Amino acid sequence: MRAEIDQQPAVLQSLLHRRTIIDGISREIQRRDVRFVLLAARGSSDHAALYAKYLVETVLGLPCGLASMSSLTGYQASSSMTGVLWIAISQSGGSPDLIEATSAAQAAGAVTLAVTNAPTSDLARSAELHLDLGAGEEQSVAATKTYTAEILALWLLVNSWAGRQNPVAAGIPDVVARAGDVDISEVADRYRYAGRILTVGRGYSYPTACEAALKLMETCHVAASAFSGADLLHGPVAHVDPTVSVVVISPGGVGGRLLRPVLEVVADRGAEVCVVGDPDLGAGIATPCIAEELTPLVQIVPLQRLALELALARGLDPDRPRGLTKVTRTH
Amino acid sequence: MRAEIDQQPAVLQSLLHRRTIIDGISREIQRRDVRFVLLAARGSSDHAALYAKYLVETVLGLPCGLASMSSLTGYQASSSMTGVLWIAISQSGGSPDLIEATSAAQAAGAVTLAVTNAPTSDLARSAELHLDLGAGEEQSVAATKTYTAEILALWLLVNSWAGRQNPVAAGIPDVVARAGDVDISEVADRYRYAGRILTVGRGYSYPTACEAALKLMETCHVAASAFSGADLLHGPVAHVDPTVSVVVISPGGVGGRLLRPVLEVVADRGAEVCVVGDPDLGAGIATPCIAEELTPLVQIVPLQRLALELALARGLDPDRPRGLTKVTRTH
Repeated sequence: MRAEIDQQPAVLQSLLHRRTIIDGISREIQRRDVRFVLLAARGSSDHAALYAKYLVETVLGLPCGLASMSSLTGYQASSSMTGVLWIAISQSGGSPDLIEATSAAQAAGAVTLAVTNAPTSDLARSAELHLDLGAGEEQSVAATKTYTAEILALWLLVNSWAGRQNPVAAGIPDVVARAGDVDISEVADRYRYAGRILTVGRGYSYPTACEAALKLMETCHVAASAFSGADLLHGPVAHVDPTVSVVVISPGGVGGRLLRPVLEVVADRGAEVCVVGDPDLGAGIATPCIAEELTPLVQIVPLQRLALELALARGLDPDRPRGLTKVTRTH
Repeated sequence: MRAEIDQQPAVLQSLLHRRTIIDGISREIQRRDVRFVLLAARGSSDHAALYAKYLVETVLGLPCGLASMSSLTGYQASSSMTGVLWIAISQSGGSPDLIEATSAAQAAGAVTLAVTNAPTSDLARSAELHLDLGAGEEQSVAATKTYTAEILALWLLVNSWAGRQNPVAAGIPDVVARAGDVDISEVADRYRYAGRILTVGRGYSYPTACEAALKLMETCHVAASAFSGADLLHGPVAHVDPTVSVVVISPGGVGGRLLRPVLEVVADRGAEVCVVGDPDLGAGIATPCIAEELTPLVQIVPLQRLALELALARGLDPDRPRGLTKVTRTH
């Protein structure tokens, strides 16, 4: 896991070299009359899908949803998907429900795109279009480099589709490398005995909150839960007290502004807060600055390392989370 | 909270008498060229929205998504929403983000419908169409009767829109009343010391899992988390061990079948499981039988009572969850 966390700048660099391929995919999408986007994924890839949802809505202005796969695979819904772009995201490309749902979407008239790290997988073959992450084999069960590769691939795709210039792209690997150098040892030590950790984001930092909670559950067996800052206030905040550790991930910008009232409420409840990101909010883990919509690439890196170090501090093997295998086959 | 739980059969009966109004709304929707549905809500209403998503996908065969409100209210996305039906769901109709996002969707060309228990609210006024739940004032902070009213209202709407006959509708209040008589005292006693409760559903029982987890967080301060059975296996299951209590809600039918592998995996991890619903799976809380797509109306009722009884057993006041007010105003 540590090695794969450290490989992320190089993986992202190599993905930047695939921009011609990504431009080709976006040209094919532009040729179609896409009016809605559906994203289908599980686990870490589902958090990359959530990121893409914000991008599609804010950059492309297209309505977008996360697919409920059981509607297609379990309830055999016969949908009309004319005008829909269906994007299936999976590191392994191996989960049967994702393959079956993608085939069903294709049959229902959707334009289908698979984003995977496995170009010969059944998922890659079942979709009309395929975007290969080229991240190299990921051996750790807890996804790290394939997650950030998915984030960057989706950002490059949406940029190309929207016809936006992205002069900042070239600097990404360097910023991600600097994020890998952020010192998280104090926070890891502080959370050694934490039983309940809430991760909170808003807008572009909400996918990071979801992914950080998953990493903590997988590798440290912590009772972690992710919330959007707004959803937290609509009920769950009642269970926040001084025994609950709260990690607030601020992307700066709009998301950072929307998180300010959340910080106040959580402080009122007596919980200790570790802010990730925005130094203006008094960051416990200050991450290198980058445009808000690219913060998910950067802010997850110290949180991956936090999960790793906390697992080691608790005597757990982060490379072999109990009860998990690298490819999960759900139906 | 107890009184409002007990009012549910009468509230649902009164909603059945509003079918002519609901038919009028569905006729208006049928007149438009709706090709995609977006649902916007927070808290309990968001779980009713999730229910409606399964209905829209499986009964109407329309692609559907849950709206990320911050895209419209925070990032000021200028979406094209031609062909979109935007359904905003809120008991109070008072949260500023929901009102603002609904106005933005309307301006972007969506057909907008507000489902509220407050016909004179700003949300009801901001939408083109309004479906009034008529559930009577809800005084308990933890929503109960407005949640099941939202579920039934959305089911009636989708049925009417799809032109389906629903001969079972008349029997619903009686089945819900019987669900209120299910004995949950043993489970409430069993969970007196439970610190971590996972609620798990799939398909039509996933919204119930989400709503049950919220009720437990709000009223009992339990570290509860809801998972779809498939998502649980893609990582979070690693943190399940004998100290974690797992509530699996089986809707029978398709969802029940998809949950069987989850039960095996969770048992392998040494966790104690309480099955709600399907007696075939050895139900800890056996709920009255009803068509799978109506189980969300029925299966939440004993879980509302579980949250109530567990709160009382822990010396908490379920009517006054700490830090919450009846109307939550997020932006």
